[in-house]
Amino acid sequence: MDTRITTLFGIRFPIIQGGMVWVSGWKLATAVSDAGGLGLIGAGSMKPELLREHLRTARTGGHQPVGVNIPLLRGDAAELIATVIDERVPIVFTSAGHPGKFIGQLKAAGCTVAHVVANVKQARKAEEVGCDAVVAEGFEAGGHNGVDEITTLSLIPQVADAVRLPVIAAGGIADGRQMCAAFALGAEGVQMGTRFAATVESSASDRYKQAVTEAGDGSTVLTLKKVAPVRLIRNPFAQHALDEESRGATKEEQQEILGTKRERSGIFEGNWEEGEFEAGQSSALIREILPAAEVVRRTMAEFEDARSRLGP
Amino acid sequence: MDTRITTLFGIRFPIIQGGMVWVSGWKLATAVSDAGGLGLIGAGSMKPELLREHLRTARTGGHQPVGVNIPLLRGDAAELIATVIDERVPIVFTSAGHPGKFIGQLKAAGCTVAHVVANVKQARKAEEVGCDAVVAEGFEAGGHNGVDEITTLSLIPQVADAVRLPVIAAGGIADGRQMCAAFALGAEGVQMGTRFAATVESSASDRYKQAVTEAGDGSTVLTLKKVAPVRLIRNPFAQHALDEESRGATKEEQQEILGTKRERSGIFEGNWEEGEFEAGQSSALIREILPAAEVVRRTMAEFEDARSRLGP
Repeated sequence: MDTRITTLFGIRFPIIQGGMVWVSGWKLATAVSDAGGLGLIGAGSMKPELLREHLRTARTGGHQPVGVNIPLLRGDAAELIATVIDERVPIVFTSAGHPGKFIGQLKAAGCTVAHVVANVKQARKAEEVGCDAVVAEGFEAGGHNGVDEITTLSLIPQVADAVRLPVIAAGGIADGRQMCAAFALGAEGVQMGTRFAATVESSASDRYKQAVTEAGDGSTVLTLKKVAPVRLIRNPFAQHALDEESRGATKEEQQEILGTKRERSGIFEGNWEEGEFEAGQSSALIREILPAAEVVRRTMAEFEDARSRLGP
Repeated sequence: MDTRITTLFGIRFPIIQGGMVWVSGWKLATAVSDAGGLGLIGAGSMKPELLREHLRTARTGGHQPVGVNIPLLRGDAAELIATVIDERVPIVFTSAGHPGKFIGQLKAAGCTVAHVVANVKQARKAEEVGCDAVVAEGFEAGGHNGVDEITTLSLIPQVADAVRLPVIAAGGIADGRQMCAAFALGAEGVQMGTRFAATVESSASDRYKQAVTEAGDGSTVLTLKKVAPVRLIRNPFAQHALDEESRGATKEEQQEILGTKRERSGIFEGNWEEGEFEAGQSSALIREILPAAEVVRRTMAEFEDARSRLGP
């Protein structure tokens, strides 16, 4: 299964585990990389020293290399960047910020860099500043989301037409049928978040994993749009945020509703009433908590099935 | 190209032109059916007598049969149903309402019936009452839209898993790559709306067609959510509706903002300031106004290309 993405990252299968706050530490990332995909440590919920610890643990025991996802809007993004360079991380995914900010440093250090985009303009910008690949993430995705609400089906062909870089599709993907669809649209790899958040190796709380496996087609909502749109499972907190939004809550009011530490409270601590349960629409396709390697294996098998069913 | 959908409707290609208000009269529907797809007259903007005229004109000149789309929430839906039965229309697509309401009458008259759904529950209901196929339409779609905001990539595999009926994918589809993606997800046909609205034979105004071809990835918005969510090109009217929604406009206020005859004003009369320019996210992939037959031809060619690029 060779694409420009497998070649770029030196991986066997073009399946990337999205870097997720409170979910993807060394344990999940190494499980995915060891299974032939690419695991990413989600630095968004880590201080630089904790990230360093995870990177060092990931290197022990003969594991395959993992990458790191860094949200560039973090106040200490520069320190996180310095840490991954210092620890010789080979692959960095940047998101939520300007892709040009640290690209010079990362490329000078020999990193392969992918940037997460939610529209065509951002994809062109990532190409222009010298990224090696783009992750095009649609409206279905869990967690923070673009303001244009462009879906994966709509976004991928547009990005594939707009840039020469290889495109990784993200948003709503939890199985091999969807991976095959993404490839039909022009992607050369997929990034799955929520599917990997509901694995044995994920650091998410059991309550969070349970909520994902119980979710139906309408169980996630996009809310807090005036602060930064975020997709969550509709728990009491999300419902409150939606109700206030519907009543016309201002940006300042939404900021107050959000408060602080909600991601940790929901995802990591499993506080159903008050936490953020960030998850994508793909939740509805996830019925079992599996080992990460089994997710990779099944996704590839489903991909091959879907591909051969399409065959003339 | 045989699927259960081509067999069910007796068509050559599994491409359906969605029935659209002020867009799809006899001229567009016969052009699509004559090209090997299935054209639908959009009864949503027609009184029963006008529908009868269109049906009679569609039968002249040796055209292939066309179907009719009937929104069941119309006050005179019963009369529209009586008209299609009286005129021996072979294929009826129902939408926006309970699929069981007229299914007995339609099946007794020998009609093949498909129902448009936006979530899994509605799909199960359509199967239960005896429909022959479901159109599963995602959040990307132009015009009226489901309240759950489930995207096409997410919806199609769930519906394909939930029902035994053949599934037609709709929402965001404008080219053959996307058709191939829909098939990978489990669909056996696609319905395209906006792509056919921007054809030579469409009754939409030139101003509307121009707006579709000029649209970018973020040009459409979903608004008026408390009345009935509708996807529109972001013109001055849509921006006003969005602004009021953001300020917390109530259902009654949104109803007043909507007023009446906005679809006719926008789509048919081309009033850019005040009309509704209903269109899907697929607008961003539409750059040319083409004859409908050429849309069918190109879509099939692109589908074959996408399918062979996927081949092992």
